[in-house]
Amino acid sequence: MTVEIPSMKIAVLGGAGKEGSGLALRWADAGHSVIIGSRDPARAQEAAAEINTTLGREAATGADNLSAAAEAELIVLAVPYAAQQATVETLRGCLAGKILIDVTVPLVPPKVARVQLPEGGSAVEAVQRMLGEEVRVVSAFQNISAHHLKHLGEEIDCDVLVCADDAEAGELVVRLARQIGLGAFYGGVLANSVVAEALTSVLIALNKRYKVPGAGIRITGIPRD
Amino acid sequence: MTVEIPSMKIAVLGGAGKEGSGLALRWADAGHSVIIGSRDPARAQEAAAEINTTLGREAATGADNLSAAAEAELIVLAVPYAAQQATVETLRGCLAGKILIDVTVPLVPPKVARVQLPEGGSAVEAVQRMLGEEVRVVSAFQNISAHHLKHLGEEIDCDVLVCADDAEAGELVVRLARQIGLGAFYGGVLANSVVAEALTSVLIALNKRYKVPGAGIRITGIPRD
Repeated sequence: MTVEIPSMKIAVLGGAGKEGSGLALRWADAGHSVIIGSRDPARAQEAAAEINTTLGREAATGADNLSAAAEAELIVLAVPYAAQQATVETLRGCLAGKILIDVTVPLVPPKVARVQLPEGGSAVEAVQRMLGEEVRVVSAFQNISAHHLKHLGEEIDCDVLVCADDAEAGELVVRLARQIGLGAFYGGVLANSVVAEALTSVLIALNKRYKVPGAGIRITGIPRD
Repeated sequence: MTVEIPSMKIAVLGGAGKEGSGLALRWADAGHSVIIGSRDPARAQEAAAEINTTLGREAATGADNLSAAAEAELIVLAVPYAAQQATVETLRGCLAGKILIDVTVPLVPPKVARVQLPEGGSAVEAVQRMLGEEVRVVSAFQNISAHHLKHLGEEIDCDVLVCADDAEAGELVVRLARQIGLGAFYGGVLANSVVAEALTSVLIALNKRYKVPGAGIRITGIPRD
């Protein structure tokens, strides 16, 4: 399956981390222009250099989170849960009219195999409330193993559930996920993100119980292209 | 795959409804002694008679919810969400030392494609709090199509996520699900039931978006016997 999307400028904040760098690598490989964001610009530049070395061309650059977000059309938030709201706070000024993909999993250590949802439901809804209607917030990629993302071409046996109040933004993210080899489906409004956010703790519980490295889910009953 | 479980006395409350009657039929077919419970004993007896006709033997009886629960070792709560807490309230006296499987999906019409979780997370946790530690509450079967349950032998392309604070009770329910032809996995503590409860709204959203009759999920990354 080939998914054609015009090349976009994608900032991945927290892009020096495991999940963020895996997504950044795959989108860079698919032909997008990727800007790695980090609190520490030097770390961001290192992560970008690593991607460029892997791909053998200049597909990624590095910057601080704010500069990365300002430069991009589409921003991916892949910072730890503890840093989520503070990071969003610093971005308020430069996201109007853009799409923000939130990858945050609200895990509360040490009990990561137990669902502990934030007050009021999903973590991403709080982000949408902070940013207001000017920013189209999309929830996705919470359940995808960072390890597998790093290995280009490796099939990932887990689907991406995409939730967004703006269906058009949600559908774009479905295509962006499919473009990098992931199964992806639009699962309705942002409130439905509770499932994807909470599922990570269930998958951790399944990994423990069945002694496997990476349980996942697949959506059934929908034909795949 | 054959799963051997000694024959049990299973009460299915709300067993004249779609989901309850499907589960009751399958467990009766598997050799358990099933008591259909309903607010209306006449409806329960009708539903039991239908099962007996289908199977060609006396495998089910009907009673009011309280009598059904009192007589059984294992009680399945398959009433509508609006009746969940009131039904549990009437059962307090007769559940000590038993296992209660809660099948309730906390849908809030008319917006059934939007996750609307009860205050404090999952609906089943409120049931466990009402009943106290004497009753082992297990959450399961929220995402299984009633339509497919009714057709004995029909493969159901959706797994059952089983959640319980008591792992032993959870594992018994995993076996009871596998015995009637369902894929089932123990997904950790009762709080994790949020995923199964909320997933039904996501599946409804997927059905609408992709114009399919019954989206479901499969757990991946765990070998199946």
